[in-house]
Amino acid sequence: MIALETAVLSKNQALAERNRGWLAGRGVLALNLMSSPGAGKTTLLERSIRDLGRDLAISVVEGDQATTRDAERIRATGAPAIQINTGTGCHLDADMLAAALVRLQPAPGTVLMIENVGNLVCPALFDLGEAARVVIFSVTEGEDKPLKYPHMFRAANVLLLSKTDLLPHLRVDLQRMIDSALTVNPGLTIFPVSAYTGEGLSAWYGWLRDRADVARLAA
Amino acid sequence: MIALETAVLSKNQALAERNRGWLAGRGVLALNLMSSPGAGKTTLLERSIRDLGRDLAISVVEGDQATTRDAERIRATGAPAIQINTGTGCHLDADMLAAALVRLQPAPGTVLMIENVGNLVCPALFDLGEAARVVIFSVTEGEDKPLKYPHMFRAANVLLLSKTDLLPHLRVDLQRMIDSALTVNPGLTIFPVSAYTGEGLSAWYGWLRDRADVARLAA
Repeated sequence: MIALETAVLSKNQALAERNRGWLAGRGVLALNLMSSPGAGKTTLLERSIRDLGRDLAISVVEGDQATTRDAERIRATGAPAIQINTGTGCHLDADMLAAALVRLQPAPGTVLMIENVGNLVCPALFDLGEAARVVIFSVTEGEDKPLKYPHMFRAANVLLLSKTDLLPHLRVDLQRMIDSALTVNPGLTIFPVSAYTGEGLSAWYGWLRDRADVARLAA
Repeated sequence: MIALETAVLSKNQALAERNRGWLAGRGVLALNLMSSPGAGKTTLLERSIRDLGRDLAISVVEGDQATTRDAERIRATGAPAIQINTGTGCHLDADMLAAALVRLQPAPGTVLMIENVGNLVCPALFDLGEAARVVIFSVTEGEDKPLKYPHMFRAANVLLLSKTDLLPHLRVDLQRMIDSALTVNPGLTIFPVSAYTGEGLSAWYGWLRDRADVARLAA
């Protein structure tokens, strides 16, 4: 089993590097968005696309076990989107992304958001070829989850602590949540945000614009 | 890959049937509790153990990637608990449960709660030998998740819709959430509950007492 797992991951890694090269060659900033189901990935994407629309073109790859609902929600914002259904599969892989890139053809100098299957475990193991990994974690999920699901938080570059508008109604301490995330990964860039009130979004948009500029200028 | 997956699942199934026999032979009601991370499994267990303490003895198997926090929280209620850490693994399997049963030795006629790794995808594929599968799904996770993660909801017997105390602060319709769950699995028994306010818990406790009686009398 371990030998097979290693072989699968090694084949995935080669395909991921190919995707990474293709994206870098076009100056496309690709982000792998990962979270539990219901942390608010799609809502955050809808708002980001609407808020940034004129400055920054965003296209989206949507991963779910079933339905095309999320791709439809994204298309309603005017952004191009491709849906991948994984069936019983619990994560996207580099091969699925390669196929989606062929269909989506993100324009040079734009941003590609890859919304992974809602799962705080498996997607952490599979590199897709993204430039950075963004974990969206809802403040309703509790302070200690980074310690209990360390692989995902260790694999991430950015942590969006979502649904902060609910904090007044929860028995959760935002600082303790940030501290547990930094305990497992001191290098995390953390943005507390609310896609409903807009709180914290300007910092996230700033990060996104900077990284998109870097990707565009490096191509 | 498909052949290997089938072989792994078939070996797991045989071990699960052995566990099911062992549990039935002792009159122990075993429930497999599954959810996303942070849906409130442990909080609901703590409250259920405290509320039912005198009527119904409960012991617990806790599954997490890392830490022994949940087992410690359960032991603080006075109930016996065993922690299983899966490392990068995304679910419990029947072999892990068999090893935990040897250590935990649940008393005849009691209830065994198996808190699976927080994941709405993988645990649905692995029978542990439980008498019933209980999905805990927080109302903060959104109305459409049963449609997007159908395997878990199809595999379940009971659905606990948790954190109903947050409903006044969410843009979520409880009835639409119930309807999406029943669309993928019309046979689901559904209990909306709040472990904080206690709302809905008496119906869940009633179900639990009935099922525990049946398991005890059948042994």
